[in-house]
Order: sequence, then structure tokens, then C-alpha cells
Amino acid sequence: MNYEKLVSLIKEKKSFLCVGLDSDPDKIPAFLNNYDDPVFEFNKRIIDATLPFTVAYKPNMAFYESSGSKGWMSLEKTMKYINGLNQAVFTIADAKRGDIGNSASRYAKAFYETLGFDAVTVSPYMGHDSVQPFLNYKDNWTIILALTSNKGSDDFQDLHQYDRNKRGEKLFETVIKKSLTWENSRQIMFVVGATKADMLGKIREIAPDSFFLVPGVGVQGGSLKDVSNAALNKDCGLLINASRSIIFASTDEKFDLAAAFEASKLQKEMEWLLKQKGII
Amino acid sequence: MNYEKLVSLIKEKKSFLCVGLDSDPDKIPAFLNNYDDPVFEFNKRIIDATLPFTVAYKPNMAFYESSGSKGWMSLEKTMKYINGLNQAVFTIADAKRGDIGNSASRYAKAFYETLGFDAVTVSPYMGHDSVQPFLNYKDNWTIILALTSNKGSDDFQDLHQYDRNKRGEKLFETVIKKSLTWENSRQIMFVVGATKADMLGKIREIAPDSFFLVPGVGVQGGSLKDVSNAALNKDCGLLINASRSIIFASTDEKFDLAAAFEASKLQKEMEWLLKQKGII
Repeated sequence: MNYEKLVSLIKEKKSFLCVGLDSDPDKIPAFLNNYDDPVFEFNKRIIDATLPFTVAYKPNMAFYESSGSKGWMSLEKTMKYINGLNQAVFTIADAKRGDIGNSASRYAKAFYETLGFDAVTVSPYMGHDSVQPFLNYKDNWTIILALTSNKGSDDFQDLHQYDRNKRGEKLFETVIKKSLTWENSRQIMFVVGATKADMLGKIREIAPDSFFLVPGVGVQGGSLKDVSNAALNKDCGLLINASRSIIFASTDEKFDLAAAFEASKLQKEMEWLLKQKGII
Repeated sequence: MNYEKLVSLIKEKKSFLCVGLDSDPDKIPAFLNNYDDPVFEFNKRIIDATLPFTVAYKPNMAFYESSGSKGWMSLEKTMKYINGLNQAVFTIADAKRGDIGNSASRYAKAFYETLGFDAVTVSPYMGHDSVQPFLNYKDNWTIILALTSNKGSDDFQDLHQYDRNKRGEKLFETVIKKSLTWENSRQIMFVVGATKADMLGKIREIAPDSFFLVPGVGVQGGSLKDVSNAALNKDCGLLINASRSIIFASTDEKFDLAAAFEASKLQKEMEWLLKQKGII
């Protein structure tokens, strides 16, 4: 899905919500364990229920890998299900990969080709040649970790760099500025945590035209309104992720309805914000 | 495998070689495609042939994930095979993971529990709380990316930081110094590329007692002798990885013998270096 299609999907659905499929096998409703593949069954019902309110799904690889090849099979089925829907939806593999060139090419193949994702999250630590193999997929998206929502983001992302003029610039700013010089940069997004709303406005100045993937709304405590006020741009420019607050809103038999209700509340708030800003 | 056991394994085998199982399905000998699981068959033969000369195996996740759940099954079989051998050998998942706490816990579970690895490579970009869940496994090892062997390592790892005394310190130095203050740091290793032999001596000064996992010898051009002279410590303190130069030494039916021969050459050179240094 290219830039224009993503923007029109957002306008059509009046939503910039991404539902995080952090489908922890230990947390899904117990009655699903009667099914052959409880995680896939859980995902399918969450997707069916939340699809009217969301533009994107983001499976978090950690929760699939912890079950080994069985988890990967649940993910493969989930992606096949999403890609077989009769409407477009954006898909993100939250994988945070990053390796030297020939390995990175293989990761890109795994997520874009084997699994059929639109986008993958990658770590910038190893530099340009570790990201380039992802950027080579011109119709796909590369989502680079910039300033994450966790406490440990202070440890390295926040460190000041020397620049030529001896003015301090933080590592995550250098990451953003440098990666915007790489090719196909229109299909680079940045991960910026919702818990850093004070920094979002500054980051929007550095990257006025980029999409940001913003986790941390909901359980982690970030505010949708603060994030949107700081960082919406003329094309929206935001995908805001909520995981646990939607998918684990309830663990009874009607968990899908509870998820739909939580997603619908966020969608309504997003619709209002998009109108306020004159985007729709 | 704890620190003492790893050191005694190195002394016993007179080797600090790690064989990288970058078992690219497109590069393994064609005749193996007659087997049910060609990648597992390849790994099994490589392991049988190289085991006398190596102390560690390092599957690179990228080459398994590119085949999806099928690739994970090949890896699961490989790990079951290694862990069922009648002699100890150290195992590293070259995964370069890094995510917020609850996701990192799941990755740690995937590699240490589900797959049964001794060690996992992790990216430090997201900071302490993204690494902590790995360190919580007291008998396992966490291998943190410091200065990698690729060209792109210049982009961010090499950037100068401000420190309190306004003396520049490079990002990878900050990563090493800070992570050595974390708990269970005796079972932290650092990835330091063999192509940076000039930096290895300096890094050894910062982390005199740590093990370094050194990729980049062989195809990538690093020199075993230079690396060893710069960074061997009293307990060896090095695992040197070679992947393609061993496992793809030949692609005919006797590829396993060719791999054994390449591994034996490196082992002999390592034995000489260990003796020179008085470690054995």
C-alpha cells in the first residue's frame, strides 16, 4: 500500500487507529483453547469485530515466536485471513529487526514476501546498510525506531551527539534526520512513543511529511488528544496503536464485542480530531 | 552454560570458534532438496563434521524466518539435535531482538525456553528495560550489539556523545560501559566486528573481563590473528564466528568434509594463539 492509498484509507474510515495483535497465548479467553489454533481464532474474531474502526493491524512478533513454529503458523493464517478480506487494511510486522545486509534482505523477504506485510519495524542501531534491504521494496514501508515509549529510551536514544556546530542533538533526532536522506524515504515511518507527547511537536518539525507510528496510548498511559494535537499533519501523518486496551478489554465469550467497543471509542475521538484539523 | 563451563569448554577443545549456521535454503547443496527438510539435513551434516573443532553454533534467524513456519521447524529440529548431542556445545540465536519489557520477555522465552539456546543477540537501542528480561535468565547469556562489522556501523554507533567532562565518547562505548553496570553482567557478551580490529584493543580496555562475539572473519575480511592479538584475555574472552567460509566451502556432496577442513584450519590457528597467550 503506497502513501496515497494509506491517506485515502484513513480519510475513508475516519480513523488512524492501528490495532496491535499482541495475542499472548496465556491471556486470550480460555474457551478458545477448545479450537485447533486458539491464537488464530482469537485474531480472526478481533479482526472481524474491529475492522470497521481501524486502518491497520500490527502483530507483535514476540507473542508468536514464544510458541515457536506453532506461533508462526498462527501468524501465517492471520496474515492470509487479513489479506483475503474484501477491503484493504494496512499491516505492520512489529519485528524490530536489524542486521547486516545479506541477513536484512532475508528478514525483508520473510515479512514482505513470505508473510505478506505492508510494513516492518526495524532498529536503526546498525545503520544505513542494515535498513536499505527493507527500503528496496518500493511499495512497502520501513518503520524505523526513533524515540520509543519505554523508560529505557533515556539510556541511548536521548543521548546528545556532537554535531558540526557543536550544538547538541539527541541520538533519535540524528536517526530521523539521517534516515530522511535515504532513498524511498517517503515510505519510511518513525516509531515515536505516545508517552513522549512533549517531544512529538519537535519531531514533527524535523519530519513534517512523515508518518509516525505511535504506540503507548492506553495501558502505557499516553493521551490520544495530546499526541494528535502535537503531531497531526495535513495528510494525518499518524497511526496510533492500541493493543492490550482493545484486544484484552474483556476475556469472556463476548471479548470481540468489548474490543469493538473500545476501538469504536478511539475511532470516534479520531474522527473528531481529523475534522478539527480540517483533514476530513 | 555458565562462564566457567564456557571457559573450560574452550580450553578442552583448544578452540574459540563459533560456526554460523546461516543456512540459506538457496545456497545449500542442491542434492539435499531430496530430503524432507533440506535445511535441517544440511545443518546436521555441518554439525557432525565441525563439532570437533568448534565450541559454539550460531543460527542466524533471518535465514530461517525467510521460509516462515517451515524455517522455524528446521531450526527447532536443529536445536533439538544439538541439545541431544553427547557433548556440550554453546548455542547462540543470532536474533538481534530488542523491544519493550513485556515483548522482550516473550522473545527471551522464545529463545531460551522454547528453542533451548544458551544465548541471544540483542540490540541495545531501546535501553535497559528492553535488555533486562534477557538478563533475568541467570544461566543464559545476553549478547549486546556494540560495534558491528558492517559499513553502516559508522552511522550511529560511531557518533560521539557528550559526557560530563565534555570529552567525546562514542555511542558503542557508552553502550558497553552502561550495560556493564546492569545486573548479571558477567553473562553479557558484546558483538564487536572483526573488521574493526583497530578498535578491539580499546574495547578490551573498557570491558577487560567480558566475552566478545566477533563476526566478520572470513568472507567479510577480518583477520583472526589481528583480532586475537588485540582482544584475547586470560580466560580467552573471545568467540570468533565464521559462517559462509565454513558452511559454504563447497556445495558438492562432500560439503561436510570441506566445512570440517575449513573449521579445522581455524581451530589449529586458535590453538596456537591460545598457547602463545598462555591460556592453555
